[in-house]
Amino acid sequence: MVAVALAELERLVDAALRRAGAGPEMAAAAARALVLAEAQGIGSHGLARVAQYCTHLRIGRVDGNARPRVQQARGGAVLVDAGEGLAFEACELAVAEGVQRALAQGVAFAGVRRSHHAGVLVDHLRPAAAAGLAALGFANSPAAMPAAGGRHAIFGTNPLAAAFPRRAADPLLIDLSLSEVARGKVMLAAKEGRPIPPGWALDRDGQPTTDAKAALDGVMLPIGAVSSPKGAMLALVVELLVTALIGANFGFEASSFFVDEGNRPGIGQAFLFIDPDALAGRASYLERLEQLVREMQVDAGVRLPGARREALRRRAQTEGAAVPEALWATLRALAGA
Amino acid sequence: MVAVALAELERLVDAALRRAGAGPEMAAAAARALVLAEAQGIGSHGLARVAQYCTHLRIGRVDGNARPRVQQARGGAVLVDAGEGLAFEACELAVAEGVQRALAQGVAFAGVRRSHHAGVLVDHLRPAAAAGLAALGFANSPAAMPAAGGRHAIFGTNPLAAAFPRRAADPLLIDLSLSEVARGKVMLAAKEGRPIPPGWALDRDGQPTTDAKAALDGVMLPIGAVSSPKGAMLALVVELLVTALIGANFGFEASSFFVDEGNRPGIGQAFLFIDPDALAGRASYLERLEQLVREMQVDAGVRLPGARREALRRRAQTEGAAVPEALWATLRALAGA
Repeated sequence: MVAVALAELERLVDAALRRAGAGPEMAAAAARALVLAEAQGIGSHGLARVAQYCTHLRIGRVDGNARPRVQQARGGAVLVDAGEGLAFEACELAVAEGVQRALAQGVAFAGVRRSHHAGVLVDHLRPAAAAGLAALGFANSPAAMPAAGGRHAIFGTNPLAAAFPRRAADPLLIDLSLSEVARGKVMLAAKEGRPIPPGWALDRDGQPTTDAKAALDGVMLPIGAVSSPKGAMLALVVELLVTALIGANFGFEASSFFVDEGNRPGIGQAFLFIDPDALAGRASYLERLEQLVREMQVDAGVRLPGARREALRRRAQTEGAAVPEALWATLRALAGA
Repeated sequence: MVAVALAELERLVDAALRRAGAGPEMAAAAARALVLAEAQGIGSHGLARVAQYCTHLRIGRVDGNARPRVQQARGGAVLVDAGEGLAFEACELAVAEGVQRALAQGVAFAGVRRSHHAGVLVDHLRPAAAAGLAALGFANSPAAMPAAGGRHAIFGTNPLAAAFPRRAADPLLIDLSLSEVARGKVMLAAKEGRPIPPGWALDRDGQPTTDAKAALDGVMLPIGAVSSPKGAMLALVVELLVTALIGANFGFEASSFFVDEGNRPGIGQAFLFIDPDALAGRASYLERLEQLVREMQVDAGVRLPGARREALRRRAQTEGAAVPEALWATLRALAGA
């Protein structure tokens, strides 16, 4: 491991993305987001993505010259066209627009279409929480899960995020995908020759399986699928919020992020912002949230969502992030450093 | 079973509720909702609730004289005070306000505080779908599930609903609660002396259990709890949307609906409305939704959400609802018929 200051990492990621063809604003926004993910210990959405983004820029799956723009707006609703660039600058624009509109209108819904991988979804909501707004985030991703009763992949693992600001404390930061487990858990089981529990996956014929290798040839299952179609219904709701409503591609239309070749995924993100001052009032909201937190913490095992990430982020701000040697070498090579 | 016309059932339910102390508008709205549930085959949220509502009216857990009113509004945000009456008239007001505001502002969020049991959550969204809006519904309920890592009940099974209008077809109607399974499944297993799968419940000491009887003394678990805290996080998000933001009671503050004695639950509901015309445009939204429906239906096992309920509702409109003899006798007695 190499300990690297976050600012230094941002410079490197920024240089790598620009070298691969990203414009300066696109590269800067992506660098901030990927390093923030790494600082929070979310390696899967951090520096490990840089090489993938660079490849997509180089082979044209991402348009490095794109600049996001507001395509359409009315009252609290706003639609941002990411122009088939990286997602981060577009999401920043959507969130900035949405926050302003929610402060004026009480509520706002901001969509991002023709987009790409959004990274750590809840991180996009941080400016909203800082402005005192409750916020939700939704995104789709390349197809990995079937519809309820189906067997072929239609929906992505479709993450859902939420941020709720607190009084004199870090916001609650909630971030989850709608698969029962991450595919990485199936890959690990297959590698170790272990079976997987029922409810994780279907095999290539659409049959439930506990064989990890067969599962890798099939599809992942939505949360709670062993008991009911609820998880698939949740995935459908998220899918529709970020596709049909805002003109983005469905998960089944988008090529995987984990391969080089493929289309411009054109998937979608959407953000909802709600101003407590337009409803119960800020003082009441903040007081009541603390009451709920106290009730949750009556049980010793309860950890507040986001607390671990925030602690890691603070430590990384002073100590830097610990980067594996091989990743460090890759980053420096990509950046031409 | 007795086959009864829906209009006749509505008259009876209306009379029963008024006789128990509900004002005419409160009784009429509740009667419409309960009979609509019954017509769709959702007996748990239909006529079987009439006796419970009547008791709550008689002993003062519901204020029969309450009239809902708009307490606060700004732009797309509106807050309705249900006044500790039954929920239905208040939800109707919130939805009517929200639909108008979304048609003007592109998006609206309507909360209902000091409320009671909301019945079939997705049914409140029908007017929004009829107006061409996508809509989401959220509600909390008396505490039944622990927080992530916790052992005592904090959140209700907190339902979430969504309606997406289609072109020349019934809207997609999605309605689910966030427990892995309904408590009724545990009761059935206990009655039959069967074990329950892991991930359904904790015992009274907060330990995972497969003993159905021990589970009945404990708490239900959120969706996917055997694998991760995702379900508890979803329950937390719904809880906060309908409590702290809008000034309603937490699930742990509300007495059960299934006992006579207790407080005025004062729980909350919230509805989100989004106008496709403010984003991708209505024509594009409708076309894309049909494309997703076709892709889902490639798999023979896929049934569209809400399709079964709509078929039952249509049949009941002409044939009436089949009401069990005992329930029919109870209803007539409550109505003084």
